[in-house]
Amino acid sequence: MKQSESKTIIGITVGDPAGIGPEIVLKSLFSRNFPSGVRPVLFGDRLVLDQMMGILGRKKEIIEIGSMPPKRISEKSVLLIPTNVLTRRVRFGRVSAECGRSAHESFSNAIALALHGWIDGIATAPIQKEALRLGGCRELDHTEILKVHTGAFEETTLFMVGRLRVFFLTRHIPLSEVSASLTRENVSRAIAKCIRFLKQLGIRNPKLAVAALNPHAGENGMFGREETEILLPAVEQSRKQGCRAFGPIPADSVFHIANEGRYDGVLSLYHDQGHIAAKTLDFRRTVSLTMGLPFLRTSVDHGTAFDIAGRGIADETSMLEAIRAAGMYAKRVRRKA
Amino acid sequence: MKQSESKTIIGITVGDPAGIGPEIVLKSLFSRNFPSGVRPVLFGDRLVLDQMMGILGRKKEIIEIGSMPPKRISEKSVLLIPTNVLTRRVRFGRVSAECGRSAHESFSNAIALALHGWIDGIATAPIQKEALRLGGCRELDHTEILKVHTGAFEETTLFMVGRLRVFFLTRHIPLSEVSASLTRENVSRAIAKCIRFLKQLGIRNPKLAVAALNPHAGENGMFGREETEILLPAVEQSRKQGCRAFGPIPADSVFHIANEGRYDGVLSLYHDQGHIAAKTLDFRRTVSLTMGLPFLRTSVDHGTAFDIAGRGIADETSMLEAIRAAGMYAKRVRRKA
Repeated sequence: MKQSESKTIIGITVGDPAGIGPEIVLKSLFSRNFPSGVRPVLFGDRLVLDQMMGILGRKKEIIEIGSMPPKRISEKSVLLIPTNVLTRRVRFGRVSAECGRSAHESFSNAIALALHGWIDGIATAPIQKEALRLGGCRELDHTEILKVHTGAFEETTLFMVGRLRVFFLTRHIPLSEVSASLTRENVSRAIAKCIRFLKQLGIRNPKLAVAALNPHAGENGMFGREETEILLPAVEQSRKQGCRAFGPIPADSVFHIANEGRYDGVLSLYHDQGHIAAKTLDFRRTVSLTMGLPFLRTSVDHGTAFDIAGRGIADETSMLEAIRAAGMYAKRVRRKA
Repeated sequence: MKQSESKTIIGITVGDPAGIGPEIVLKSLFSRNFPSGVRPVLFGDRLVLDQMMGILGRKKEIIEIGSMPPKRISEKSVLLIPTNVLTRRVRFGRVSAECGRSAHESFSNAIALALHGWIDGIATAPIQKEALRLGGCRELDHTEILKVHTGAFEETTLFMVGRLRVFFLTRHIPLSEVSASLTRENVSRAIAKCIRFLKQLGIRNPKLAVAALNPHAGENGMFGREETEILLPAVEQSRKQGCRAFGPIPADSVFHIANEGRYDGVLSLYHDQGHIAAKTLDFRRTVSLTMGLPFLRTSVDHGTAFDIAGRGIADETSMLEAIRAAGMYAKRVRRKA
C-alpha cells in the first residue's frame, strides 16, 4: 500500500450514460497512457459500464463500494461508487430522464466525497443538459451543480492545452455584448483572480497576459478605444497592486506567445477568443479546469456526441488529458484553496 | 533556358529598407528551402541589399536591370529592378521619409511589371505606414496602393496556413461594430466571392464553412440571434444559388475541422476570429494572399520588426512561405482573374 498512498485519488464521473462518457472513461482505464500517479474511482451506473465493456470486448474488474471509503484499496481493480438509477440497458444517443438522473446523481456523489476529502479531485465526462432537466435537476450544467453543492461563487473556468492556460472574462454572452461588459474594475479584479489561481496550480510568481479586444489592439484607438480607456488602465492598476500583468496584447499574437512559455496564463475577454486559440492548437487535448472550489474539477472539452455514442469509436484523448490534469494539480489546489 | 520557361516569375519587394525586409528577402534567396519552381526578381534599393549582405557575411550576384525585361534570364544570378531612392547607408529601425519612398517606389514598380505581364505575381516584405506617409505616399498600406494602381475594388485578403484558408467578412473595425455590420446580403455576397476565389486557386468544387459569431453558434438563440436571423438564412440562400456553403459552425471548431481538410475555406466574421486561428496554428507560416486583382500578391504576416532590424537575427520562414504560395498560385490566379 506504500506506493498508492502517494497517489492522487481522482473521482471520474461517467456522465450521461447514453453519451460517449462510459466509453471514453473505460478506454482511458484500458489505456497504457493512463497517468501512473492517479488512483481512479468511478462514479456512475454499473449497468452501463458492463454494457460498454461488452461492446468494447474488454473486461476490467470493477469493485462496487458504498459511499464510505474502504479500508484497503487494491492496486489492480477499479473502485466504483455506484449510482443504481438505470433500470434497463441504455439506448445510446437518446435523451432520457433516467440517464439525466444517473448523470446528476453520480456527479453529486463525487462532489460529496470530494468535499468530505476522500477523493482529491474530480474529472468529469460530458453530460446532456436536456436529459439533466428531464431528470429533475434544476441546475443547468456541471458548473451550476458545483456552485449549489459547494457554495462557491467565485468559480472560474480555465482551459489548458500545451503550455497555454486560458482564463475568460466573459463566456456565454452574445459577442455584441462583450464590449459593454468591460470595466476597469472587473478587468483588474479578474487579473487578480487569475493570478491567485495560477499560484494555486503551483506557479510561484505568475505572469499574466491580457488579450486585447480589437484588431491590432485597436491600433492606438483607430479600431476601438477599449484598449486605451479600459484595458491598459486596468493592467496598470493591477501592476501597482503587485500583479505581474501585461497587455493588452493583440489577440492574434498573445496565445502564440504564451504557448511559447512567455506568459503563464492569458486572460481572454470573450468565449471564442480563448476557445479558438485552444481548440485550434490541439482540439483533442484541450482540458477544462474549474477553479475556485474547495477541490479541483477537470473536464473534457467536448459534449456527449450522441451521434457516435455506443459504437465504440469515440476518442478518449481528451478524457485522459482531463484525468492527467486532475492528477497533476488536485492536491496543490486542495492545499491552497 | 528550357527549364526556366516553366518557372513562375515572382517579384519580391524588399519593403521598408530600415525594417527586416531586406534581411528576410536575402535569407530566403540563400535558403535551401527556396521553392525550386520560382524565378525571383527583386524590387528595391541596391544599396540596402549590399549593406545587408555585408551584415550577413554572404554574397549573391544581383544583376540590375531597367524596367524592360531582359532577353535572357540567367539561372544563377538574381535580377533586381532597382529603386535608387536611398542616398546613404540605412539606419535600421528608424522611420524615415527616404525609406518610405523607397518602399513605395519599389512596390509601384512591381505592380507595373505585374500588370504588364512580365512577372506572374508579387510577394511583399513588410512596409512601415508612418514612413510611407512621410515619403509622400497618400495610400495607407500595400492594399490601398494596389487598389489605386489596379482599379480593383473587390480585392480580398485570404490567410493561409497548413490546410487552412481563411477569408474575412470584416477586418479593421472595432469588435463592438461587428454584429451591426452583418446582413444577409453582405454575408451571401461574401460567400459567393470566397467560392469564386477558391476556384481561382484551382479548387474545383470548393466547400466553404461560415464561422458563427456567438459562443456555441448562439446555442439556439440563447447567446445571440445573429446565427438564426442572419447567418443561417444567408447560407441557405447561397446554397440555393449553387454554392457549397455550410454553417454557421461554432468558431472554436470550424478552423480545426477545416484544417483537417473537411472544408476548402472558412469565412470568418471579424479580424481576430480568423487571425487567432491562423497564427495560433503556426505563427511563422501564416501567409496572406490578396485576391481579386489582375494578378496574385502574397505577403508575410508580420511587420517591419524595427526592434530587431539590421541585426541579422530575423526569421525568414514567413517570407519563404509567401514566395512559395505566390509560386504555387500566381499562374492560376492570372489565368482565371
